[in-house]
Parts: sequence; structure tokens; C-alpha cells
Amino acid sequence: MRATVMYQAGDVRVETVPDSTLRHPTDALVRITAACICGSDLHPYHSMSAADGPARMGHELIGVVEEVGADVATLRKGDLVVSPFAISDNVCVLCRENLQTSCLHHEAAFWDGIPDEGGQAEAVRVPLADGTLVKLPVAADSALMPSLLTLADVLGTGYHAARMAEIRPGQAVTVIGDGAVGLMAVLSAKRLGAEQIILMGRHQDRTDLGRDFGATAVVAERGEEGIARVRDLTGGLGTHAVLEAVGHMPAYHQALGVVRPGGVISRVGVPQYEEAPIGFGSLFRHNIRLAGGPAPVRASIEELLPDILDGTIEPGRVFDAVTDLDGVPAGYRDMDERRSLKVLIRP
Amino acid sequence: MRATVMYQAGDVRVETVPDSTLRHPTDALVRITAACICGSDLHPYHSMSAADGPARMGHELIGVVEEVGADVATLRKGDLVVSPFAISDNVCVLCRENLQTSCLHHEAAFWDGIPDEGGQAEAVRVPLADGTLVKLPVAADSALMPSLLTLADVLGTGYHAARMAEIRPGQAVTVIGDGAVGLMAVLSAKRLGAEQIILMGRHQDRTDLGRDFGATAVVAERGEEGIARVRDLTGGLGTHAVLEAVGHMPAYHQALGVVRPGGVISRVGVPQYEEAPIGFGSLFRHNIRLAGGPAPVRASIEELLPDILDGTIEPGRVFDAVTDLDGVPAGYRDMDERRSLKVLIRP
Repeated sequence: MRATVMYQAGDVRVETVPDSTLRHPTDALVRITAACICGSDLHPYHSMSAADGPARMGHELIGVVEEVGADVATLRKGDLVVSPFAISDNVCVLCRENLQTSCLHHEAAFWDGIPDEGGQAEAVRVPLADGTLVKLPVAADSALMPSLLTLADVLGTGYHAARMAEIRPGQAVTVIGDGAVGLMAVLSAKRLGAEQIILMGRHQDRTDLGRDFGATAVVAERGEEGIARVRDLTGGLGTHAVLEAVGHMPAYHQALGVVRPGGVISRVGVPQYEEAPIGFGSLFRHNIRLAGGPAPVRASIEELLPDILDGTIEPGRVFDAVTDLDGVPAGYRDMDERRSLKVLIRP
Repeated sequence: MRATVMYQAGDVRVETVPDSTLRHPTDALVRITAACICGSDLHPYHSMSAADGPARMGHELIGVVEEVGADVATLRKGDLVVSPFAISDNVCVLCRENLQTSCLHHEAAFWDGIPDEGGQAEAVRVPLADGTLVKLPVAADSALMPSLLTLADVLGTGYHAARMAEIRPGQAVTVIGDGAVGLMAVLSAKRLGAEQIILMGRHQDRTDLGRDFGATAVVAERGEEGIARVRDLTGGLGTHAVLEAVGHMPAYHQALGVVRPGGVISRVGVPQYEEAPIGFGSLFRHNIRLAGGPAPVRASIEELLPDILDGTIEPGRVFDAVTDLDGVPAGYRDMDERRSLKVLIRP
């Protein structure tokens, strides 16, 4: 079968690899019908050393179940399923607390941590299939497919940012980053009742989409200038919640600059730093809270799915390009160079 | 009048200073009947340079109103009052959100930031008296005085740690630090329904008091050994909440080691560091939250006062020494050398 392999920064290839097959009785084999490239795939695309490659890529996928292991109870051949970016048994004590990204099962992992499997491919072996996969009540050619695919990561991740920020109706929210996750954070903040949603981003096609999703203001400036603009928009106080959907240190500093005393910085951009200011002069003095992490998107699929099915939300609008597997390396380039917001793959 | 002055690390003196007097129509002049030395006073006692001194000391006090400014509406001569460690107007938009430590009024401050005033003295000018002071419905010689004095800081600070950790009934909690605030955090965790309360501390007289306040286990070990002990006590998972009542970096690392995935580290020990690990390998991977800051104790006085008046809680047991003003320098030494847990001052 064919699959996407990254050899090192900037070097993405589509190659013939050994067919995925069942290995454990709890596995399912899924023929992929829709996948995509994630903003977080751009981190290794920038920094991966040749020693860390080659690596199979892709952690967002929808597909048709082709075969199930003997212990798989809830799925059967022909089911259309979506896979979150994290494998989980969905029954351990942490999964039951809706923290499937910290599932205690020994096979639990992120797709990016599983060698020899990945979503940007023709097929995939899904471990812990009963826990991981969620059946979709539509056909594989449904027009809703782009929106349904966002359930695998970006919609649930944006929603996680908003939920961890404990946004309440009437609050003011800043979203940092106009990538797909940032735009999903805007949509999610609106869903939770935020009254003022300030989107910090400087790509107008993206921020225009952000306005459609609920942003009430856009701030294109960065650094001190951007902070001053947000403060101006909030009577000097800053916003109750800041949803940080970038992961680089300047975004964290921006968040510190625009958060209101007693407010919360909720991070879902994977931090590209380890140490950062959290002492008296940054978080502590004004009781700023810090939240976030890898989104347990498995926990929100059932909650968000009806809104997609009935058209209340259209998160699939973040896809602005479609390709087959052959076009994946160009898709990475286009996303890296900001020519594409998010690329949908139909293998 | 006489007051406590710190000249530099290790150099605390009781001296004659100019009498405190009213300066603004919103001030009250309070004759102090009970005050104390705080664990946080030990930070400058260790590190203050001569260039930063001399500084008036003390931010926890109870006293009798001697005189009020023309604009003070709710207090009059003879009232017994307690002052939180932070001055606030209690009516601004942030005070109304119960964040009095971030009050927007231009006179708002912490006692430690006000030159020429301090609680370890015979009297004090209290700015924004209507907002700051809370009347106590007892006489100045009440036997409840030690417990009532904890409303000025340590009880409200321990309670803030527990509330910011959003402790729910049945949860497991680790408290780091067996100083007065740590012990108040134990009491507060119990008040909020925590089922397992692990107190990390190595002074047995203090941890014994911690057991009285509700600790279900004591871990005297520190570092990796201490972390392993807490993990043993929690089935390997760690605790939902960690209340960090120390402020030094090893305590933060301890907190990272014992917090459960999805859990929260709530800090009320004033951080003696600015940068710390918060990236993928520390907070982010398992959605660990960070909360806390200076406690808006003004917000909790009315809530906690009835429990003291009816004897439900006895936070005043943290005082194990009493002195007059002359004994204050020795009180600092005793607390620094861990001979006293907390020293009550009767000026």
C-alpha cells in the first residue's frame, strides 16, 4: 500500500510500504477515505533531524472498516469511522474522566508515536478499535466529510481550548493563531457563549473565516503592539480567556500580555519550549491560570457530531485544498508557505 | 509609636517611628491588638539587601478603630476589625469578581508595598477602610483571637489554594509544605470534601497538627523519594490536586511529580523563581493545570468567619508562640530556625 513518510525536515515522500494488517484481536483494519495534514505536522517539517526519520505521518482520518480482530465488539466490516489522533481504550479510570489522551492502557498512544502506521496513507491498523473509533451515521461520500474529519483533531482541539478555559456566556476571549485550530477555537468560544472574541492573526483570508466563525474583532499586529490593541478593545483589562493555538514562545508572551487578572491561558498549540515565565511577574501576581494540553477529542465527538449533522456548525470550511496521496508533499509545502490553510487528502 | 523595621536580611528591629495618622478621607486609624509574623516575611529575612531597606513589616492584623476619615461610611471608633494583607476598595470590577488582590483603585496595594505602615506595630493607617476592613462581632480579648487573626492571611490563603484547585468531594489532594499556610490548605481541602489528603512535610509537631486538621497521610521524604511515596499512596496515579504552599523551585518540581493526569497544581507559596518547566514534558502532555496567586482573602472572610465563631474550625492552633513587640526580632529568628511555627504578636 502507499503511505506518507517524512525523512527529515522538508523531506516528505509518498512511498509503497508493507500493507497494514491486524496484529492484535482488539485491532481494526481501516481503508482510509479522508485524511489531512495538520498544523502540528509542520513542527517536524521544520525541525526533524535525519536521525529521527523516517517517520510515517498523519493522525486525522476517516475510513471504512475492512476487517476487525476477534475481540472487537462494536464495529464491523463496512462501518464508516473517524479516528481521534489518540488511541485509547475509553474505559480506564482516566478515559472515564474524559482524559483519553492519558489512557492507561499499554497500547494507548498518539498516532504520531506509532511506528509503521499513519493516517496519510491508504489504510491503517487501529489499535484498541472499540475504544478509539467512533461510527459515523453517513455514507463515505457525504458532503459533510470535511466537517466530520475535523472531529479527528482540530475541532476537538479548539473546543478543548475553550472548555479548559471554562468560558462562560458574556466573557471576552482572545484567540492567538489563525490556523485551523485557532479558527476552531473561535467557533468553540462562540458555542460556549463568549460575547467578545478577538482573533489575533495576520492572514486575511483566514481571519475573514474567523469572523464567519464568530470573531468580533481581528488584531493583525503582534508583540507589544498587538497586546496594546487587545487592551484597547477591552477597556485596558484584557480578556478572561486566552486560547493559545500556536505553541511558540512569542505566542505565550502574547497570551501573558492580553490575559485579564484572574483569567486563564488555555494552550492547545504544542509548546515548542519547555521553560517559560510563570512566577510573580507573569502568572502569579494576578492569579492567571494555565490550562490545556493534547485534546481528548474522543470525549467530544458525540457532543459535537449532532451540530455538524444538522449544519449548526461548518468546521470543514477550514479545508481550502484537496489532494490525492501523490499531492501530499506539495500539500506540506503549501501549508508551510501559508498558501493553504489545511489540506484534505482523499487517498 | 513603636513598629517593626527590617534593615536587611537577618536584621529586624523594633523602633520608635512617627505616629500613623489619617491622610485621606477614606482612611481609618487602627490601634493594633493582635498581629503576627508570616512565613512569607522569611523570604526578605533571607534575601533582602541593605539597599532595599529599611522596610516596615507585618501584613496581618486585628485592631480597634481609633479614628475614621470623613468618607468612611461603615466603620466607627471602637469597632474591632481584621485587615486582609491586601488593601482594596471592594467595589471595582475585579473586586466584584472576588479578586481583591488585583483591585483597580490607585490606592490598592499589599501592606508589604506601603511605605511607613505595617502590621507589626502599635497602630496603622488603613487606606480604603470601607473596602479593606471587616468588622468582627467579638471583643478584643476574645479567646477566638488567634483563629480570627488567621482570616488576615494564612487561612484565606490555604482556602484559596484549595478553591483554585477546584477540589471536589472524594478527590485526592497533596499539600506541599507544613508551614501555617500548608496546614490551612489541609484544613481547607478537608472542608471542600477531599477524601485523601497527603501532607508533605518533615516537622513532626507540624504534621501532627496537620493530621488533626484532616491529613490522612504524611510524607516526610522529599524529591524523588517523596514523589515515589505519594505515587504509592495513590495507586501510581498521583493526586487530582496539589496545593503548593512553599514557593521554592524544589516544591514546584515535587508538585509536577505527584500531580495526576488532568490534575491541577495550585500555588500559594510566593514563587521565588520566574522561569519553570511548563512544556510538553511537564504540564502539557497530561493536561496538568496551574492555578493560584496572592489570595483575595477579603473574599472569603464572611464565608469562613462563622466556622470560626461556632468552633467548627480552629485555625488559630497554628500559633505556637506569643510575644509583645519587643519579642518580634526573636520571633523572626525562632520561625526561621523552625523553633516556632507561627508567632502571635500582642503589641
